[in-house]
Amino acid sequence: MRKILGLDIGGAHIKSATAMIGKTVKLGKRETIPFEIFREKQRLASLLGAIMKKTKPDGVAITMTGELSDVFKSRAQGVRWILDSALKAVRRIEMRVVDVNGRLISTQSAKRNPACVSSANWSATGAFVSRWITNGIVVDIGSTTTDILPVVNGEVAVKGKTDYERLKNGELLYTGYLRTSAVAVCPEINLDGATLSTCPEHFAIVGDAHLYLGDIKPKNYTCLTPDGRGKTKTAAGARLARLVLSDSKTLKNKGITSIATQIIKAQEEKIALGIKRIVHNHGLNMAPIIVIGPGRIYLKQIKKRLNINSFPRAVGGYPVQLLDPSVCAAGLWKGDALCEGIKTS
Amino acid sequence: MRKILGLDIGGAHIKSATAMIGKTVKLGKRETIPFEIFREKQRLASLLGAIMKKTKPDGVAITMTGELSDVFKSRAQGVRWILDSALKAVRRIEMRVVDVNGRLISTQSAKRNPACVSSANWSATGAFVSRWITNGIVVDIGSTTTDILPVVNGEVAVKGKTDYERLKNGELLYTGYLRTSAVAVCPEINLDGATLSTCPEHFAIVGDAHLYLGDIKPKNYTCLTPDGRGKTKTAAGARLARLVLSDSKTLKNKGITSIATQIIKAQEEKIALGIKRIVHNHGLNMAPIIVIGPGRIYLKQIKKRLNINSFPRAVGGYPVQLLDPSVCAAGLWKGDALCEGIKTS
Repeated sequence: MRKILGLDIGGAHIKSATAMIGKTVKLGKRETIPFEIFREKQRLASLLGAIMKKTKPDGVAITMTGELSDVFKSRAQGVRWILDSALKAVRRIEMRVVDVNGRLISTQSAKRNPACVSSANWSATGAFVSRWITNGIVVDIGSTTTDILPVVNGEVAVKGKTDYERLKNGELLYTGYLRTSAVAVCPEINLDGATLSTCPEHFAIVGDAHLYLGDIKPKNYTCLTPDGRGKTKTAAGARLARLVLSDSKTLKNKGITSIATQIIKAQEEKIALGIKRIVHNHGLNMAPIIVIGPGRIYLKQIKKRLNINSFPRAVGGYPVQLLDPSVCAAGLWKGDALCEGIKTS
Repeated sequence: MRKILGLDIGGAHIKSATAMIGKTVKLGKRETIPFEIFREKQRLASLLGAIMKKTKPDGVAITMTGELSDVFKSRAQGVRWILDSALKAVRRIEMRVVDVNGRLISTQSAKRNPACVSSANWSATGAFVSRWITNGIVVDIGSTTTDILPVVNGEVAVKGKTDYERLKNGELLYTGYLRTSAVAVCPEINLDGATLSTCPEHFAIVGDAHLYLGDIKPKNYTCLTPDGRGKTKTAAGARLARLVLSDSKTLKNKGITSIATQIIKAQEEKIALGIKRIVHNHGLNMAPIIVIGPGRIYLKQIKKRLNINSFPRAVGGYPVQLLDPSVCAAGLWKGDALCEGIKTS
């Protein structure tokens, strides 16, 4: 058995997970570490070093989206920064990078062709899940984005490989259950019998609506609050009221609950509609839909809106809660032609 | 003649202007000083002190919107912070504060009832202009917001006095020609024959579209850029491309010009529609529309969309370019019952 560390380096979090690779693949536990790359890219290498020290893996499979941050002049620069930081931390252990075709390529190849590994973390999940299902759709609802990946005849059948192409084809929705600016999902709010435009400032996020309604606990609010204030119901309520230039005193609990509910409902609709489009485009009307990621809290509503699909709780024997790009990246080590021959010290 | 200093303290700028008050009111020059209150509220008093030293006024008329910043726990706290900072700078010279009824009240009254002066800068403009026209609409298109103020029978006939009520009644549009997040005016972009959702991050602002198209010069881009990079066409283009997770290389000039044009067009429509609503609500179909503020660059498009109204270039003998809340606040000194009796030392 070899222990492989999977790393998913995003713009606001680093996710790490291990997989034990032998005759079978045993997926291990995941960890999410808040890390805002635009604030502290310098700290990436030492943070990864600490993860290495803790997990002591035999191999590292890495994937990323953090290179999109505007702290980097270009994606290529971001990819190289992330890979160089990782190489400093990983040192002599074999490291591979997930590419847009779901393969684990060498860091040298990745640095030569950054576009090929840029924002490819969806590909890790898609490639790993497609080993276990023939037809279906993988929906990964994260804090910032949602991936919708069709699997057709055992292959990931996405039309786009770059973020731009994925956005264009509806395979990437830039909306997530936590960090998304509330105004983006709810440009208008009905209140007091009137329709109000919400204010396009970073006043509140979708996570504030969930926190206010009790859908998530403060510890699950893993990003910064827009105003730097608390992760409490009261503070979230004040942020939500500010969306319509008001306050908790004026709107009271009833008004703020209404705002929060409208935000969540709008996002549910957005995600469900996005899934329906991909279902339709690939004729996957009866296929199972594998909903993963922390945004799985929307499952019940998605089920309602797509009422003839099945929503399996496990894939290939793995509970869906286990699946995410970091653990899938590690899992790809087994069965990847490029990695199987590698001996690790 | 007495020299009155008008101050409009916003969240991102301080605007100052003087008016000479005698038998007539002579409006003077204005100045705009970038000042982000959420970053440096401590510096407000000394900044105002410098303005006092430079202008040496006989009286100060102040108005504000900066108290809305989430650096303050509440609007009341923000109003008090701004007034206390101003009092430190102004010292023994008479200072008055614009209230939501277009009156200049004492700082003591304002501090006792902060709601009455909170975000009342629109009221200064409305009250001053309504001295010169009987029926009409004042449209002030600023960097962040647009005020649409009906004047009926010589009175400012707004239905809302608080921001929340003004938003609800369409008298405040939270959209401006510069600072507004581009995604807020353009949630979708047509490109390459497809409709793409723009990414709800602070990647680009409306000012980037104007800068890219050459509507404004870098010196008119008076706020910070979203990514901290340059106020150049190239840097603005990169920010606009990022809205669809792409870059200048992929989209080329044609693609980015299309994005910029769609953003500006969407905002023109938003503002024109907002004006039409107020025109309709007050039966002001033939009334003159006084468009002021730096967003007057939209005038031509607004004229096209509201083709039976007149768009005067001067009001009461003052060129419309002169009018803004700071100069109008100063101008209110004359004819305000509370101020006329005041002797300044």
